[in-house]
Amino acid sequence: MKLKEESAQTRTKDERVLTLLDKMSIEEKVGQMTQVTLGMLMKDGSTTQVDENKLKEAIAENMVGSILNVAGHALSVEQWHDILTKIQDISLQETPNSIPVLYGIDAIHGANYTLGSTLFPHNIGMAATRNIDLVKEAAKITAKEVRASGIRWNFDPTMGVGRQPLWSRFEETYGEDVYVTTSMSEAAIVSYEEDGLENITAVAACMKHYLGYSFPQTGKDRTPAYIPEVMLREIFLPPFAAASGAGVSTVMINSGEINGMPVHGSSYYLQDILRDELNFEGLAVSDWEDIKRLHLRHHIAATPKEAVKIAVNAGVDMSMVPMDYSFRNLLIELVNEGAVSEERIDEAVYRILKLKFDLGLFNNPYPEKEAVKNFGKDAYKQVALNAARESITLLKNNNNLLPLSKNSKILLAGPAAHDITALHSSWSYVWQGNDRKYYPESTLSIKEAFINKIGEENVICNAALQFNDQVNYNTGFIRANAGKADYIVLALGERAYAESPGGIHDLALDKNQIELAEAASATGKPVILLLVEGRPRVISGIEPKTDAILMLYRPGSQGANATADILFGDYNPSGKLPFTYPRESGDVLMYDHKNSETFNEIIVDNYEQNGFNPQWPFGFGLSYTSFEYSELKLNKAVFTTDEAIEVSVKLTNSGKVKGKEAIELYTTDLYASVSPSVKRLKRFQKVELGPGESNTFKFELTSNDLSFINTSGQRVVEKGAFKLSIGDQTIEFNIGEDNL
Amino acid sequence: MKLKEESAQTRTKDERVLTLLDKMSIEEKVGQMTQVTLGMLMKDGSTTQVDENKLKEAIAENMVGSILNVAGHALSVEQWHDILTKIQDISLQETPNSIPVLYGIDAIHGANYTLGSTLFPHNIGMAATRNIDLVKEAAKITAKEVRASGIRWNFDPTMGVGRQPLWSRFEETYGEDVYVTTSMSEAAIVSYEEDGLENITAVAACMKHYLGYSFPQTGKDRTPAYIPEVMLREIFLPPFAAASGAGVSTVMINSGEINGMPVHGSSYYLQDILRDELNFEGLAVSDWEDIKRLHLRHHIAATPKEAVKIAVNAGVDMSMVPMDYSFRNLLIELVNEGAVSEERIDEAVYRILKLKFDLGLFNNPYPEKEAVKNFGKDAYKQVALNAARESITLLKNNNNLLPLSKNSKILLAGPAAHDITALHSSWSYVWQGNDRKYYPESTLSIKEAFINKIGEENVICNAALQFNDQVNYNTGFIRANAGKADYIVLALGERAYAESPGGIHDLALDKNQIELAEAASATGKPVILLLVEGRPRVISGIEPKTDAILMLYRPGSQGANATADILFGDYNPSGKLPFTYPRESGDVLMYDHKNSETFNEIIVDNYEQNGFNPQWPFGFGLSYTSFEYSELKLNKAVFTTDEAIEVSVKLTNSGKVKGKEAIELYTTDLYASVSPSVKRLKRFQKVELGPGESNTFKFELTSNDLSFINTSGQRVVEKGAFKLSIGDQTIEFNIGEDNL
Repeated sequence: MKLKEESAQTRTKDERVLTLLDKMSIEEKVGQMTQVTLGMLMKDGSTTQVDENKLKEAIAENMVGSILNVAGHALSVEQWHDILTKIQDISLQETPNSIPVLYGIDAIHGANYTLGSTLFPHNIGMAATRNIDLVKEAAKITAKEVRASGIRWNFDPTMGVGRQPLWSRFEETYGEDVYVTTSMSEAAIVSYEEDGLENITAVAACMKHYLGYSFPQTGKDRTPAYIPEVMLREIFLPPFAAASGAGVSTVMINSGEINGMPVHGSSYYLQDILRDELNFEGLAVSDWEDIKRLHLRHHIAATPKEAVKIAVNAGVDMSMVPMDYSFRNLLIELVNEGAVSEERIDEAVYRILKLKFDLGLFNNPYPEKEAVKNFGKDAYKQVALNAARESITLLKNNNNLLPLSKNSKILLAGPAAHDITALHSSWSYVWQGNDRKYYPESTLSIKEAFINKIGEENVICNAALQFNDQVNYNTGFIRANAGKADYIVLALGERAYAESPGGIHDLALDKNQIELAEAASATGKPVILLLVEGRPRVISGIEPKTDAILMLYRPGSQGANATADILFGDYNPSGKLPFTYPRESGDVLMYDHKNSETFNEIIVDNYEQNGFNPQWPFGFGLSYTSFEYSELKLNKAVFTTDEAIEVSVKLTNSGKVKGKEAIELYTTDLYASVSPSVKRLKRFQKVELGPGESNTFKFELTSNDLSFINTSGQRVVEKGAFKLSIGDQTIEFNIGEDNL
Repeated sequence: MKLKEESAQTRTKDERVLTLLDKMSIEEKVGQMTQVTLGMLMKDGSTTQVDENKLKEAIAENMVGSILNVAGHALSVEQWHDILTKIQDISLQETPNSIPVLYGIDAIHGANYTLGSTLFPHNIGMAATRNIDLVKEAAKITAKEVRASGIRWNFDPTMGVGRQPLWSRFEETYGEDVYVTTSMSEAAIVSYEEDGLENITAVAACMKHYLGYSFPQTGKDRTPAYIPEVMLREIFLPPFAAASGAGVSTVMINSGEINGMPVHGSSYYLQDILRDELNFEGLAVSDWEDIKRLHLRHHIAATPKEAVKIAVNAGVDMSMVPMDYSFRNLLIELVNEGAVSEERIDEAVYRILKLKFDLGLFNNPYPEKEAVKNFGKDAYKQVALNAARESITLLKNNNNLLPLSKNSKILLAGPAAHDITALHSSWSYVWQGNDRKYYPESTLSIKEAFINKIGEENVICNAALQFNDQVNYNTGFIRANAGKADYIVLALGERAYAESPGGIHDLALDKNQIELAEAASATGKPVILLLVEGRPRVISGIEPKTDAILMLYRPGSQGANATADILFGDYNPSGKLPFTYPRESGDVLMYDHKNSETFNEIIVDNYEQNGFNPQWPFGFGLSYTSFEYSELKLNKAVFTTDEAIEVSVKLTNSGKVKGKEAIELYTTDLYASVSPSVKRLKRFQKVELGPGESNTFKFELTSNDLSFINTSGQRVVEKGAFKLSIGDQTIEFNIGEDNL
């Protein structure tokens, strides 16, 4: 992890900011630290029209520095421009120093709060592509469409490592692996910001949610995580360290507690680690209402005022209040009482103003007309299609049942067969993603894509538009119509949801869907499962009764087309699971578990399986062709910690069709002072080979890739034997004596 | 927690031990540190006859200092005497310094490895009694029967706090609460040792398994725990601190890893905390084969020899090798090479010899004939009956269906209806508890106890002796015979198991048992569930279809009689759940969760329940009478940290029958610098009141009862407001200004 050398203290300050800061009153400064929701600024009863009196109250009277999100649903580019123009008019004309408002939004898989935007697969699907270029392309398009909407700050990417499959935001993660999460989230950030924040193709990114949000013990959203320091530093911190090193502009704080300490109230997490250790220089914004919750939920503050004091002193620069002006009023009192220093206020406001300058808001705070040309280009749909195609993961294909002939007659059923919202889920035109009236006309359901692909006469389907419509669970329809079909395709999984409303109490797939699969199997026709779900729902009871299974995740705007392409042979699937799919609700274990999870020395008569026995492991994914690995080689057998480890491997497409393959390189520390994982992913690369084609691929590791966090919390490399594996090839090497 | 002031370094050494140590060779010393299993010392093919040549190889040649457990099954007192006499003959006659062998055994709910012993409920049931006196009585009887068998060291009690209900050793724990676990395990230790170790009514106790064993992340036995320091010190350490303070003689080490560090290899856990902080003075023994496993499973040692070095240097005094002499041979090499110091060896051997002196083995190493009179007394059965009766927990009793009239006609079914082994489970005459041929003739099944109670003519039952016999799952029998019965009683739950073979992959009760309940419910007859299980198996699907539910846990020798007594009104149940019974497999939350687990400020249309919604919470348990609390009072409203908090409450038996009630006193820290729990148990007392009777009960707390572990790992009391509750009574008070 390369971190910046210069510390926050010694860095040259931006004179523009310092000059402006000098002119500002405490009220103005504290206003800058205040963020409110657009919802409280709308005309009564409206979700599209701002109320100018309310705007004045917010910006002129309370001098709020930032506004976020929507009042219920996505808006058109024109509506956004209208709103942002009114906002900035007031900020320029009616505040003492004419400081523009910084508008922020959750655009997490495309510009999902702008009508007509292209939506990409959720991160869990992007991770399955194992294709960094796709991540970058999707982020770039998102940046352009958000900026075209007049918005310059995007609360993305989500960087919590997804190791709690019950969690309702699992689909927003890049899955269970640290390296996948780190490399993909860093790629997204670079893509968002690399053109320069003042440019119309960029937005300020936000690494979120710092830290430990993705690992709630019970799986419920925003509930406590218990993370020992060694795990925190091994698993959850590296993506944030990489993003800080890459210079990400902002961070959003985890709403939850780690080990009883709410992150919003912790100077350990917000100052010692984030600032002093990761050297993060940007703006730290709270999540929704979270400062109040230090009092209301976490009970570490006896009053709302104490909550503000704790959070600001710990290091929160901006409060997403977001429904009143209490934060501002309480913080002014605290500054006047000396309970929060002006230096701390200046530090926070410096970061806010610096970002506003960097984003070009002081040059032109208004929506940039020239940015609009970047909205809604046709090419974006192709990127969304590519991403969906490469994400979809073939989990089972008995006797090469797939791809199906386009002459096949399909009985299509299940709650996701004709519901477009389940293909998109959270943060899709509305928060919950579940209101189809805001979706573009062009968005197809699986049923519609099938009809487009093989003709209406070949698709037997009575599925409803709504996931939970009872007609979707009618086993009688399956029994009655199976005779007319060659195959039964069941689109099962999860309705659209976001955050807490997506909470579940069991990983098992819903019983009424299990019954659909049972009924389909009972007909004797081949059964193909399409899993439309944001997290792995246990299907071990029905899996043996199916012939083929495709995991779709949340594939977005082009998800239905991509599914039809794969099912009917126009595209060869190449997705690999970004998480371990559990076989049973009470048997959740990641691929990078410790050796002592899988020991088997003691065997007695009735000894139960006590190992790693998932439905499918991380990295699993089939293809319509076959790939063979050979000739795994290293440049040396023994390395010092200074030497590059050069790896090469030959890959052959030994099948009959062109295909993409995600090459994955794993390492294993055979013995170490902290118990090592059985293996850990260190590199991946998506490549394409024609039938019969071979190529040799090279990777380079450094000894840092072999490092781990020891019991003192230090990242170290220990000498000794290691194993490296790619596909079925393995090779051992040693880190030997040197200046360790 | 009161710890001893004197440190291990300044304590006066036992001259007898020092004198002996001076005479011993390295080989002899290292032999003392070696423990092997009886299984490797038996005549080929025998489980009862020791092989004197193998004994000589162990004791004379390899000079092993300790032997443990059995060669497959419980032995009679006479068989034990024969074996121990042969062992000590050799130790006295054929070793250089005639050092007697220290024999150790797992006698964890009675003298479970001696034929004919009385077995008490497993700890999970003892915890449900909320009766410390019963814990003491059971431990005293166990001590007497173990000592009568010629054995003076008992690997008991289990002190891991049971907060992972998937874990197969959950039944061996005192449940999820720290205070229950701490007070009951300390009581057991005191009862084992208080008469003086040389006395025939005492055994050396063993606090186990130090530390964190009971919290494996996946639930599988002996797999990694991830425990942040604040949780370790808040939840898992206090029982061991109390036991160390009470002067317990020995400790057994956790086989698992905490945060990647195997406890057997950790000087942090074994020296810094155990010795320096808890001031524990006794002998530390490994668990089964665990030193080897530092190499084989945990991979923190590259060779078996390195494993020995790491473990001994970390602080393991004795290795339960237990199936060869490799530990001894490797350790001799390590001492000779200087990799393990003689000082460390002397420290370990000092502790071993000290215990042998304290146990009187140097005076008389042979089975004490006068101890035999303490074996198998009739009175023990009454204690076992009392314990089973007070443990059994009435979870549901619609319309006061229970108790049933003795004229009732009962249809009894289910796998636990006639299987005595499920009533006992782990460590019952055999390791797995599952071989009925070693059980005493007097042990009754539920079916037999029902027949004794209400007559054969009133019990319709075709249940088999074996839990898994298919006849037990015959729903047809229920349908066919329900018409003849007034009530259907289903004995469901879990087969006997111990350790890893009890592993499960889902908390849900087995499907074939769910089907029994469905079938019973469909008959329209009232359905009564008896739950015979070591951990909470999810039954939310069938619970609404039942009319009454009794939780039996693992009630032991008198479990069937106690059940019949309660079901038919000869005893009024008073057990309270020692754990939270989950409603769903993916919704496991303890009673002492944080406030942020149960917030409900945000409600949207489809917002799922996001709170504490168990099937039954910790502390739940009904009675055949009703109890009313009133007049909860404190001696003051504001306390300094020096002042005693005196609590009184009036309890009235407002029902029509005599009953026992476990009074539970909880406190809540309203706001604290680490997020406080919603409540925590601080005192409990089991009392009995006649119908209409009232009494006032007093409790005394100190400010230490209000303390918690802060983010610096320190135990602190913070001033501010607290809440105290008993029953439905609550009262607030403050810890105010003083010398905090």
